[in-house]
Amino acid sequence: MVNVIIHGCGGKMGHVVAELVKNEPDCQVVAGIDPTTPALDFPVFPSCEACDVAGDVIIDFSTAKAVPALLAFSKAKKIPVVLCTTALSEETTALMQETSKEVAILKSANMSVGVNLLLDLVQRAAVILAESGFDIEIVEKHHNQKIDAPSGTAMALADAINQAMEERYHYVYDRSQVHEKREKTEIGIHAVRGGNIVGEHDVIFAGRDEVIELTHRATSREVFAVGAVKAAKFLAGKPAGLYTMKEVLQ
Amino acid sequence: MVNVIIHGCGGKMGHVVAELVKNEPDCQVVAGIDPTTPALDFPVFPSCEACDVAGDVIIDFSTAKAVPALLAFSKAKKIPVVLCTTALSEETTALMQETSKEVAILKSANMSVGVNLLLDLVQRAAVILAESGFDIEIVEKHHNQKIDAPSGTAMALADAINQAMEERYHYVYDRSQVHEKREKTEIGIHAVRGGNIVGEHDVIFAGRDEVIELTHRATSREVFAVGAVKAAKFLAGKPAGLYTMKEVLQ
Amino acid sequence: MVNVIIHGCGGKMGHVVAELVKNEPDCQVVAGIDPTTPALDFPVFPSCEACDVAGDVIIDFSTAKAVPALLAFSKAKKIPVVLCTTALSEETTALMQETSKEVAILKSANMSVGVNLLLDLVQRAAVILAESGFDIEIVEKHHNQKIDAPSGTAMALADAINQAMEERYHYVYDRSQVHEKREKTEIGIHAVRGGNIVGEHDVIFAGRDEVIELTHRATSREVFAVGAVKAAKFLAGKPAGLYTMKEVLQ
Amino acid sequence: MVNVIIHGCGGKMGHVVAELVKNEPDCQVVAGIDPTTPALDFPVFPSCEACDVAGDVIIDFSTAKAVPALLAFSKAKKIPVVLCTTALSEETTALMQETSKEVAILKSANMSVGVNLLLDLVQRAAVILAESGFDIEIVEKHHNQKIDAPSGTAMALADAINQAMEERYHYVYDRSQVHEKREKTEIGIHAVRGGNIVGEHDVIFAGRDEVIELTHRATSREVFAVGAVKAAKFLAGKPAGLYTMKEVLQ
Repeated sequence: MVNVIIHGCGGKMGHVVAELVKNEPDCQVVAGIDPTTPALDFPVFPSCEACDVAGDVIIDFSTAKAVPALLAFSKAKKIPVVLCTTALSEETTALMQETSKEVAILKSANMSVGVNLLLDLVQRAAVILAESGFDIEIVEKHHNQKIDAPSGTAMALADAINQAMEERYHYVYDRSQVHEKREKTEIGIHAVRGGNIVGEHDVIFAGRDEVIELTHRATSREVFAVGAVKAAKFLAGKPAGLYTMKEVLQ
Repeated sequence: MVNVIIHGCGGKMGHVVAELVKNEPDCQVVAGIDPTTPALDFPVFPSCEACDVAGDVIIDFSTAKAVPALLAFSKAKKIPVVLCTTALSEETTALMQETSKEVAILKSANMSVGVNLLLDLVQRAAVILAESGFDIEIVEKHHNQKIDAPSGTAMALADAINQAMEERYHYVYDRSQVHEKREKTEIGIHAVRGGNIVGEHDVIFAGRDEVIELTHRATSREVFAVGAVKAAKFLAGKPAGLYTMKEVLQ
Repeated sequence: MVNVIIHGCGGKMGHVVAELVKNEPDCQVVAGIDPTTPALDFPVFPSCEACDVAGDVIIDFSTAKAVPALLAFSKAKKIPVVLCTTALSEETTALMQETSKEVAILKSANMSVGVNLLLDLVQRAAVILAESGFDIEIVEKHHNQKIDAPSGTAMALADAINQAMEERYHYVYDRSQVHEKREKTEIGIHAVRGGNIVGEHDVIFAGRDEVIELTHRATSREVFAVGAVKAAKFLAGKPAGLYTMKEVLQ
Repeated sequence: MVNVIIHGCGGKMGHVVAELVKNEPDCQVVAGIDPTTPALDFPVFPSCEACDVAGDVIIDFSTAKAVPALLAFSKAKKIPVVLCTTALSEETTALMQETSKEVAILKSANMSVGVNLLLDLVQRAAVILAESGFDIEIVEKHHNQKIDAPSGTAMALADAINQAMEERYHYVYDRSQVHEKREKTEIGIHAVRGGNIVGEHDVIFAGRDEVIELTHRATSREVFAVGAVKAAKFLAGKPAGLYTMKEVLQ
C-alpha cells in the first residue's frame, strides 16, 4: 500500500488526485497540506512544518512559491515528491535539482500520456523539418484564471525542440513592438486565454507550401491527475535522483 | 472600359492584379507606378509625379510609406483609389480621410469575400456570446516575410468586435510579462509567422465548457486581387468619400 | 427574482442546473420534482401531482416518458416549461404542440448557446458564400459510445443551411463508393467517433483560394444546463406559444 | 556540389525544381531534358539520347510514357533517378524495379517532406496511444474536382498505422447506415471535398479526456518539388537499389 500525501489538497487538482487515489486498490491518502483547507477524508495540515504524518510519496499541485518549503520537507523526511506545480523560478528549479541529490523527485511540465508523446513527436519533427527550412511556432490555450503565460507545457515543448536542435533557437512572445521579419531561429510562443479551456497545445511547422500541426487537447484536468498518481506509484521507494514522466511511461 | 493604374505594379500583388485585369473584358491596365520596375505590358513610371497617363481608378498594393505621395497624386488628378496597402500610420490614415473629401477612396483591411463576411459574423457572435461571458481572442498566421504584426485584418476583426461591443475592449499582445489573470475586457491578439502562409485568421470565443471558432484561411494572394479588381470597377466614377468592401459586396 | 422548478432534479443535468441557478443573482430554485430524490437545498416532490409550490418557470431534464405528466402540470398551473428532454415520441411531440397553445413552452434540438448561435451564423454564411461558389461540408466528432450518426446537431446544421438556400441541397455520407466529382448541391456530412469527445461540429465553406470554417466544441454536457437557465429567465412571464433558443438569443 | 539533370524541365514542376535548385548552395542544374523546350539557364536536350552532360542525379517530373527511355539512360550512364512521375504502368514499374538493381532509384507515393514525416509520426503515435485506448480516425480534404475518395495519401496513412499495429484494424467510410457503437479496431476515414483545396490530412487520436491531432496541409503542388530536391541530394552517390522518401528523412 502506497501512502500518499497531497501537497495543495485544497486546490482543484488536489481534489481530483484525492478522488482518484480513493479508487485505487493499492494506494491511499494519509494526509493533505494546504493553508486554508479544513480536514477532508484525511487530516489536513496548514503547512509542511505542521505535517507529522509519515508517507511514501508526496503529490504536489500547489503554487510556485509554496515549493521551496515542500522541498525542505521532502529532504528532511526523505519522502519522494511528484512535483506537478509549474512556472517555478530559476532559484526554485536550482533548489529542486539540489534536493534531488538526496531524495527522489519527479518533474514534468505536464503529466498526461498525450503531452509526453507530443514532446517526443515534436523533437522528431523539428529535426527533419527545420533542416527543410520550416519555421516553428507554438500556440497554447488555457482558461481565463491561469496566471502564468506561456504555460509550462508550451515552454517544455519549446525546450524539447530547442534541445533537439542544439539550442539554436530563441523564444519570441510579442511581435507587435518590432517592425522586422521573423528570424529563422525564432520560436514564437503564443498564450491564448479564455473560458474554462483545460489545455490545448498546438505546435506548428510552417514550410514552403506545406504546414504540419501537432495538437494536443485535454478536456479534463483528470488527465494530469491520472498521470500524477501513476508517477507516485512509480516513485515511491525510488533512490534519490531527478525523474521525468519519460521513465514512468517506458 | 475601366482604365486601371496599378500603384506598386512591381510587387507580387501588383503582378496578380495585372494578370486578372488582363482577363476581364471590361477593364484594362493603362499604367503602372513602381520605383524599380521596367516597362511591362503597359508603361511603368518610377513615381506618381512621373505618371502622366489618365486613368479611371488606381489599385494600390504598395508600402505604407509610399501612400502619402499616392494620395497627393489621386487628389491632384481626381482619380479614385482602391487602397490595399495595410499598416498605415496614424498620420497617413488621417491624410487618407482628408483626401477622401475630394476623391473616392476605398479602404478595407482585407479585400476577400470571406474575410468581409467574417467581419460581419464576428460582430454577431460577439454581441450574443460576450453577454454569456465568453472571452474573445484572435490568432492570425502569416508568412515569415511579413513585417507588421498583428496583421491589419486581425486588427480590423478586433475593431469590428470592439465597435459592436461599445468600445469596451482593449487589446493585449503579450502575456509573458504580466503575472495576472486575464481581464474580461481583453482581446488577446497573437501573430504567428512561418513558411509562406498566405493568411489565416481565427477568432476564438471561449466560454464555460464550449468554444466557438470562426476561421478564415486564404491559400493564394489572388483572393485579395480578385476583391481589389471588383472594388476598382465599383469605385470608378464614384463621388468623393471613404468607401469599404461592405458597399462593394452588397 | 425568477422562481425555478427543476423537473428531474435528481439526474446529472438537474444537479448542474441547481448549481448554476444558485450562482445567479436574479433567480432561485423553489422546488424540484424527482421520484427517487430526497430534499436538497430546496423541497423535492416525487411527482408533478405532489408539487404544490408556485414557480415562474420549469426547467426539465427528465425522461421521455415523464414528459406527458409534466405537460399536464404545466398547463394546469400555467407555468412555462423549458423542455430539454430529447427523443420525444411523435405523440408526446403532438401533445407538446397542443399544450403550447395554453402555456409557453421552449424546445430546441440543442440547448447550448454556442450551437444555437452557430445555427444562425451558418445560414448567414451560406447565403453569401454559396453565391460566390463555395462548397459546404460538415464534420462532427463524438465519443465512441454514440450510436446514431450523424449527430442530431449536424443534421440540424445541414437543415438550417438547406432551409436558407431554398432546399437546393442533398446530403452525402460516403464518397468511397462513387467515382465521380462532387456535385455543387451536395453537403457532405462526416461522423468521426473516438474517445470521450463530448461534441464538436465543424461547418466548412470551401471556395477558390479561401476557406471559412465555423466550429463549435463542447467540453461538457453542462453547456446544455447553461442554455437552459438562460432560456428559463427568458421564458418566465411569456405568453403561450412554442419558443426555441433562437428567440432567447435575439 | 551535386550536379542535377532535370527530366521534364519544360513542365510546371520542372520549372519549380530548377528555381529551387538555383537557390541551393550545394547543388546546381547542369542540364535539362525536354522535347519542346529551348535552353534555359542551363543546356536543354530534346531527349535522353541527346544528353551528353555528366550529372550526379536526375530529377524526373515527366510523363509515364517518357519513363522507359529515362530508365535506359539512367542505367547506361549510371546516374541515379528521383522518379516523381505517377501513374506508371505495371510494365514500367517492373522495368523500374529491374533497373534499380544496377542504379539507385527513388520512388514514393507522395514526395512531400511533410507527408512522409507524417507517415512516420502516425506510426509512433499509434503504437503508444492505441495501448492507452485511443481511437484513430482520419479526415482528408481535397478540391471539388477530385474523383477518387478517400485520397491515396489518406489510405497510405491508414495502411502505415495498420502495419505498425499488426494489421489489427479495418477501415470504415460511412456510419450513417449502421446503428451501433464504434468498434475498437475501426479506423474511420472521411473524405471532405470543396473549393480548390490542394490537400489536407488530419489523423485524430481520441482518448479519455485528451485528443492528439496530427495534421498536414499542402497549399501548392510545389511541395513535391521541394521533396524531390531533397531526395536528389540524398540519392547522389548512393549504390544501386530502390529507395523511398523514408530513407531520405532518416
